[in-house]
Formats: sequence, structure tokens, C-alpha cells
Amino acid sequence: MLCVGLDTDFAKIPECVKAGRTVGEAVLEFNKRIIDATAPHCIAFKPNLAFYECLGVDGMAILDKTVEHIRTNHPEQFIIADAKRGDTGNTARMYAKSLFETFDFDAVTLSPYMGGETVTPFLEYPGRYAIVVGLSSNPSSVDFQTAEKGGKPLYQVVMERMMEISTPENMMFVVGATKADKLKEIRCFCPDNFFLVPGVGAQGGSAEEVIANGANSKGGLLINSSRGVLYASSAEDFAEAAAAVAARTATL
Amino acid sequence: MLCVGLDTDFAKIPECVKAGRTVGEAVLEFNKRIIDATAPHCIAFKPNLAFYECLGVDGMAILDKTVEHIRTNHPEQFIIADAKRGDTGNTARMYAKSLFETFDFDAVTLSPYMGGETVTPFLEYPGRYAIVVGLSSNPSSVDFQTAEKGGKPLYQVVMERMMEISTPENMMFVVGATKADKLKEIRCFCPDNFFLVPGVGAQGGSAEEVIANGANSKGGLLINSSRGVLYASSAEDFAEAAAAVAARTATL
Repeated sequence: MLCVGLDTDFAKIPECVKAGRTVGEAVLEFNKRIIDATAPHCIAFKPNLAFYECLGVDGMAILDKTVEHIRTNHPEQFIIADAKRGDTGNTARMYAKSLFETFDFDAVTLSPYMGGETVTPFLEYPGRYAIVVGLSSNPSSVDFQTAEKGGKPLYQVVMERMMEISTPENMMFVVGATKADKLKEIRCFCPDNFFLVPGVGAQGGSAEEVIANGANSKGGLLINSSRGVLYASSAEDFAEAAAAVAARTATL
Repeated sequence: MLCVGLDTDFAKIPECVKAGRTVGEAVLEFNKRIIDATAPHCIAFKPNLAFYECLGVDGMAILDKTVEHIRTNHPEQFIIADAKRGDTGNTARMYAKSLFETFDFDAVTLSPYMGGETVTPFLEYPGRYAIVVGLSSNPSSVDFQTAEKGGKPLYQVVMERMMEISTPENMMFVVGATKADKLKEIRCFCPDNFFLVPGVGAQGGSAEEVIANGANSKGGLLINSSRGVLYASSAEDFAEAAAAVAARTATL
């Protein structure tokens, strides 16, 4: 099942969308066209907050309008804030309020370095999900995620601690596609939770390998593609090209 | 040396500031009064982004105006975005652009779980600082920060890795005051970098112990106080009360 990552970079938007529009208008128009074209092929959208925050106050309005566009026109879609937030309890409560109340996201990605309490405020919203980074797909993920505690790798310690304080109905994990050999091992100690899997496409991971190694009896996989879908074409057919890539990825 | 944390929670703002003002106006007015009153006693201000993001689009405008107020009226102050961001290189570049270009922060706190590449884009801005969480002050910091790699605790592995790719002129570390016994040990393997020390005051850490264990030959400590200063009084004298707490903390 496909998640389309909305890492919308103004510099990469096709000229035909930029023409006659402000930066903010162009980003919003591009998002709407991509969303409408790819929605038949995916079950989730994942705006990456960094790409909106760098546009300042306007960027947050565009983020809000993007979420609203999905809610209004594609109410069946699941909407993830890719935010990688992670702070102590008092601050975590404010981030949860921001992402689940002020903005209307269904889920948010979280970075676990500061411990279990960084996650708990997010678990108190019925029907919403925390998505904690277990093992990420980037090259320097091995710097710290492979440390050990009690004979287990840190990503396992993180995921098992999070599983203690949550249920599969409010917790998912980020597990990178570039570590397909690890996916099987991770699925053994975490059989029930959904995995959000980045790294397919631009980062080189294989969707077939991810499914072979990471699926559980219910599927349990949300495969993310961002740049591969968004920038499939820089010409006027960009939305159709994005839909074609999304359709191919979804049927793997 | 004192850093005043601007974790401004509308619910805790004195009634005299709220009266006749919108939420956004009240938060901005409170910040300005606290900043002007405490600036003689501190060298840095640290807005906590969660508290502004939860106010939505308006919150980002208030954050921007707060930074602008400090820059204009107290240009000698160092301004830290307490953001705990931490994502892969492509996204980290956008966060760096957001916090150092769109918003005019001097430094930003970062969470290291995803590895060295989460930090590098922030190091490319001359005169600006990454402040990476080493050992935090919250109770669940022991969940993962005490894992081990190569016989060393994770916080040491994190800090040593970051020291390899940076200099004391673009890298500081968060080291919590509630771990005063650890501060001495950490100062041994990290003699030159500044430490941003949270946990004094509301979280129970002692400023005297922090200085005894964590100072280097140049001082090297930025002791943060947020709630203890901000909410020193809920009456009309709140700004004077904040200044008094700041003055006491600064002269310890």
C-alpha cells in the first residue's frame, strides 16, 4: 500500500505551475494536482514539514490548505505529518496539540532519542497514530541505531519499549527499505504494527524485497515514495506522470 | 551564563496580559515584557517551537516577531530555536534553511537518532550553531541514551561523532542538569564545546553542581531556565519577578 510523500520543493516544481504564481501559490497548486492525480493509487499522503516551514508563515498556511484539500476531496486518505519531533513530556504535549488539533493530521513521525515520554502525549488521541523511527533508511542510520542495550540493537530496544506503552492501533514504526535484510528480523519481534517504509525509489530500496520480508498477515506495510512520484516529469504532464509512477508502485 | 527559555503557554500567562488581547497578541506581549525585563541578566533566549506551532499559522508569525523584537532591541543576545529537529540530509537542509534563513536564529537544538548527516547542513552556516542533544535532563533519557557502542555509552558515541564533523565554533551540546555526576565525565571527553544545560529549576537540577562539574576554562556553560523565570509571578509584577529569578540564577 502506497503513501505519497509531499516533500514539495519549489525549485523542482514544473515551470508551467510556477508561471504567474507566487511561491506559496505554486506549491499549493502543485500539491493539489499531485494529490488529485495520485489519490486513486495510494492510501496515504505524507507532507514533510521541513519543506513548508522553510517558507515561513506562508508555508504553514500552505500546509494547512494542503491537509484541508485532502480532507475535503479525498476523505478516505490517511494523512501523516513527517515531522520527526521528539522532546520531553511537557513539550511533546504541545507538539501533539499542534499536529493533531491545530493541524488535522492522522499521524506524526517521531524521533525517539529522548525516550518513551516523548511519545506518550501522542497516544492519548483516539484514532491517531505515533510513527516512531525504528531503523531509518539513510546512510548514517548506522551511526547510532546499531548501538546495543541488553544484547539487543538499539532499534529493537526502541521498538520494544514503544510497544510496551502502546498498541498496534496507535503506534506504527518507520523501518527503512534500504535495510531489506533487517526487515525480516524486525518483523519477528514486531509482528502486529504497521511499518512506514521510506527509501523505495530515490534512495534505492526495492519494493519487492520490502514486501517479501516485511509484510504480515494483514499486509502491515505503508510504502512511501516522495521524489520518485512528485518529480516523475517536469513538463506539463507532471501529474499524469506522477499517477503512472504511483500506479506502478502500488501494484508491485 | 543564563539562557531564558521562551516556552510561552497561553494558559499560564497572567490575566493582566490576556485582558483585551487575542491569544497571539497576548503571547507576543508577554514575550516582549519578559525579554525586556530579563535581558540584562542573560546572554541568550530560547523560544521552544512547539509552543508557537500549536498556535498554527498565527504562532509562526508570533515566533518571527519575537525573534525580531530581540534582534532589534537586544542585538547582543544569542537566539536559539529549541526545535529538536533530526532528519535525513535532504530534509535537514530544508530545516536549516527554515531556521537560519527564513527565521533568523543563531542556533538550533537537534536530535541525533538518525545519525551524523542530520547535522551537517546546519554546520554550513558561518557563525551559526548546531546544538545536539547528548544526554538530556528528562526521566526517560535513560531509555536509549545509555545504550552502548564499542564499550561507550550512546551519549558519548553521539558527541564524539559530532565532534569529528564539527568544531567548537559551530557545535554545542545539550547536557542535562539533572545528571550532575555525568557532567564531569562528559566534560573529560568534550573539553572545548559549550554545553546548553536544561533541567535547572522546574526539573530539579542544581546550578551550583552544574558549574562545579561542567565548567571549562572559558566557562563553557549556558544554563537554561524556562518555567522558573517565565511564571515567577502570575500577578502584574510578573516581569519584575522574572527579572529577579533571572538575576539570582545568573549570579550563582
